[in-house]
Order: sequence, then structure tokens, then C-alpha cells
Amino acid sequence: MTKTEIKNIIYLGPEGSYTEIAADYAINNLSNHNFNRMLKSSILQVIEAVDNNSGDTGIIPIENSIDGIVRETVDNLIKTTSRVMITGEIIIPISHCLVSKSDNLAKIDKIISKPEAIAQCLHFIESNLHKNIEKISAPSTSEAVKNLIDLPENYAAIGTSKAAEIYGLKIIAKNINDEKDNLTRFVSLGSKTPERTGNDKTSISLSTCNKSGALVDILLLFKENNINLSYIESRPAKKVFGDYTFFIDFEGHIEDSNVQQTIGKMAPLINFYRILGSYPKCKKLYL
Amino acid sequence: MTKTEIKNIIYLGPEGSYTEIAADYAINNLSNHNFNRMLKSSILQVIEAVDNNSGDTGIIPIENSIDGIVRETVDNLIKTTSRVMITGEIIIPISHCLVSKSDNLAKIDKIISKPEAIAQCLHFIESNLHKNIEKISAPSTSEAVKNLIDLPENYAAIGTSKAAEIYGLKIIAKNINDEKDNLTRFVSLGSKTPERTGNDKTSISLSTCNKSGALVDILLLFKENNINLSYIESRPAKKVFGDYTFFIDFEGHIEDSNVQQTIGKMAPLINFYRILGSYPKCKKLYL
Repeated sequence: MTKTEIKNIIYLGPEGSYTEIAADYAINNLSNHNFNRMLKSSILQVIEAVDNNSGDTGIIPIENSIDGIVRETVDNLIKTTSRVMITGEIIIPISHCLVSKSDNLAKIDKIISKPEAIAQCLHFIESNLHKNIEKISAPSTSEAVKNLIDLPENYAAIGTSKAAEIYGLKIIAKNINDEKDNLTRFVSLGSKTPERTGNDKTSISLSTCNKSGALVDILLLFKENNINLSYIESRPAKKVFGDYTFFIDFEGHIEDSNVQQTIGKMAPLINFYRILGSYPKCKKLYL
Repeated sequence: MTKTEIKNIIYLGPEGSYTEIAADYAINNLSNHNFNRMLKSSILQVIEAVDNNSGDTGIIPIENSIDGIVRETVDNLIKTTSRVMITGEIIIPISHCLVSKSDNLAKIDKIISKPEAIAQCLHFIESNLHKNIEKISAPSTSEAVKNLIDLPENYAAIGTSKAAEIYGLKIIAKNINDEKDNLTRFVSLGSKTPERTGNDKTSISLSTCNKSGALVDILLLFKENNINLSYIESRPAKKVFGDYTFFIDFEGHIEDSNVQQTIGKMAPLINFYRILGSYPKCKKLYL
């Protein structure tokens, strides 16, 4: 491909994050643009940055095969009043490394990472590290690895091998996640709906009206119009139990006539809906 | 009430946890038994202990009004091959305190708690504490407060006022959660289905067969039988995207004939289901 126009790609950093690995794939394989990289320290900051600069691309994680959806992503996409939309998806395998300044496992008595990453390596930690190891939270795995630069040799981080290389640290152990089949799905964000490919997905959020059975009626509309749902999740809508916003993924594109008919017929059943994006389905795993 | 028989009540500890506050309510107001308390350090340990001692009661958190379901609870109840069932629900307000050995806010440069509790107090932390405060993960808020006993004065924990009292620590600030309407729903666990009260809820988990639209057909069965769904959540079933186990709460009791008809008609649409419990709906908030 000839790379011409320069665009911004904004993603969850710092350098060496899993999101950067997804962004690298998108830059090298899915686009014919040259990209200027902008790294942010939270998912919300990525969403806000894309919203403020139409034409920019964002990359954030949305679902892990073990933990389920990334609540920070879905809650912020649902809540936002912006025009940010999902423009694509990228699935990559997650392989956690134990990283430190020293390669002496016996020295390690503090471990730092994103709580989800620590939870995914509990068996390794319990079998190989100090019984009373202190677990320190970091906002991301790559932030955890970066923090090691200013910390003594008794700290280890859980993160990517890429982050270990970038920050000149030692990899004590590779692929330490308890479940070896650990995948994360990332989405790209933008301000323009990609063209229909015939193998697309649409993500919407909606809240139902108070009518009993409204959710079932909505799902039935999808079925009657031959639209397969691929995901449904309830997120708390207000601070009252029993009041939820639904996040729904289905097969099809917003330009498909059966999708448009379904959304039209939903009108009496909902309080609001927001199209979060129509985008090509990810057909394969990358890396 | 005359309290006669002595039973075990098993809950997520250590002393001073929010779960203990829910357990205290259950002991004092919802039962005519005397209880021997057994505290466990994880949700899974509570479930396993109740499973091994039929006749015992367990108490664990299942849903927070801001964060959504407690994944550790739902995933372990879905997965378990035990006969443990949900026997009731208790909703209590969450009010986080900042606790330390010293009452000098300026000294605090490390904060320890459950990651969810830290996330619920981010605005307070950012406005009142050191910019580069180190956030340390503990398995529970009460474990965090207990840990302070062996830590210096620059550590603070987020937890209950009850835990601060129990461990002889100072409460620096009360009700520090950013959202003041923060409720947690707890469930009691046992081995016997409570009798039908006429105002009951049932929790089930199920996986659908591969037939397209099976979930919608199942939800439609509930609607046709006039059963209101109060909650639906998808949890990853295997390590493949798109394969989910559903966790569903609906109104009614497993002895109701419309519930039994619905479950009977579901048979061709599902791979498995497990009744997680039929129990009286919680009508009010406690405390």
C-alpha cells in the first residue's frame, strides 16, 4: 500500500501496552495512512480525544475472553453524548510476562499490574512467589512495567514482553496467565461509519420503556427480521437496582434494510438508543 | 423471636466487611436461629463451605448499583456443580471511609483497598490526596483496613467504619464514595429452597443450543407465561468469543406452574440450565 495522508492514532498507553500491539497491527495491516501516535492514560481520555478531533482513530479494549466486557469502555461509550463510533475490531492473544529489574524470582515480594492481569495469573503467583506478596494496582499492565524503572529489585510487574524490551527490563517468566487461551478484542473508534462489506456487525445501546417485557419485544424484532444477536449485556443505568441500559451487538450493517426496519419498529419500546457503530466483523485472530 | 438451634453462618471476612454488615442484619432480623460465625477470605471459599455443610448459611455480595454484578459470585455460582442455592437477598447502602493510624491527611501517600472501592472514590482521592499516591490492591475493604495494623502511618485504607472501630484505627473522612447512592445486593446461600411467599424471585443460569435465535425464543417463553425478567447478563462460557452462559433473574417461584411450564418448554432450546435459587424478593433497603 502507498501510505499518503498523515492521521492521528490515539490509544491506551504507555508504550508497550496490549492496546499498542493492537494499534501496531491496525497501522501495519489495516490502513493505507501514515499515523502520528498519541498515547493516553485512560480509556475515557482516548474516547474524548477522538471526539474532539474528527478524522482521528482511537484504539481501546472492549472484551476479554475470560473476564468479559471491559466495563470502562462500554460504560463510557454508552454514556458519551459524542459522535464517536466503533469503526472496526481486532482480536489479539494475551500472553502475560513477569518482568523485573532482577531475574531473581526469590527476591520478588511486591507485584504490580492491572488488577485483572494479577487475577489472571493467580495460580502462577501462588505457586512461584512469596506467600505474602503485596499486590499493587496500576492503571494498565504497561504502566506497571514502566513504574519498575523507579522501583527497587523486589518489585515485579505483569505485562507484555514488548514493554519489558522498551523499558530495558528482564523477563523472568513468559506466558504466566493461568488460562492459556486468553484473547482480548479491541475496537477502533472514529467519526465515520465504514462502508457495508456484507459481513458486518453493529453495536447499539438502548434503554427500554417501562412497559413490562419490552426487552423481549425488542429481541423478538431482531429475530423476526433475521438478525442474529452476538452479544447482550446489562449495565446499571441509574443508581436504582432494576434499571439497566442494554449493550447489544448484532450481525448486519446500519445500511441494511432489515436493520433499519428493526430499529424503526423499536421506537415505541425504548426511551433512547444510540448506534455505537457498524463495522466489519473481525474474521481472524492477529499475531 | 426465640432463638433455639445453633447454625453456622459463613461469610466474606475479615471482621468489619460490608458482607458482615449484611450478615449482622440477617442474623438479627431475618432468622430465629443462633449463629456460629465462620469468616472466609474469598467468595469461592464461602460457596464451597456451604456446599460441604448442608444446613449452613452463606452470605456473599452479588451486585453493586454502580459496578454491576460481582463477577466472582456469578461465575462461581454458574460453574459450581454443587447443590448450593440462593435462599434470599439483602440490599444495604455502601458508605466508604478513609481509615488510617494517623488522622493527618497530608501524611498519606499509599492507599490500600479492593480495586472497586478505590475506583468508587477516585474523585475524593484526586481532590484530597497526594497526586502520585500508590494504590495497593487488597482482596476486600476489610482486609485492607486490617492490613493497616502492620503498616506505617503513611498508609490509608478505604473500608467500613465498623472495620476502623474493630481494628482501633482513625476515620479520617466518612462517606467518601463519589456516587452517594451506592448500594450492594447480597445473597444468602443454603441447601434448601425457601417456601413460596407469593413475592419471589428465581435465578437461573443456562447455555443455549447452537440454534440461531435460541436466546430470544427462551425470553419469549417467559413473556408468553407472564413472567417478568429482572436481570440478564452474559458471562464468557468457554475461551471462545461468542460462547456465553446467561445468568437470568425473573419474578416467580420454582413451584409456580407458569415457571415450571416455561422451564419445560425451554428444553429443546438449551444445553444446560441450573436453578440457582427461588427466594423472597428483598422489599426494602436495610440500615
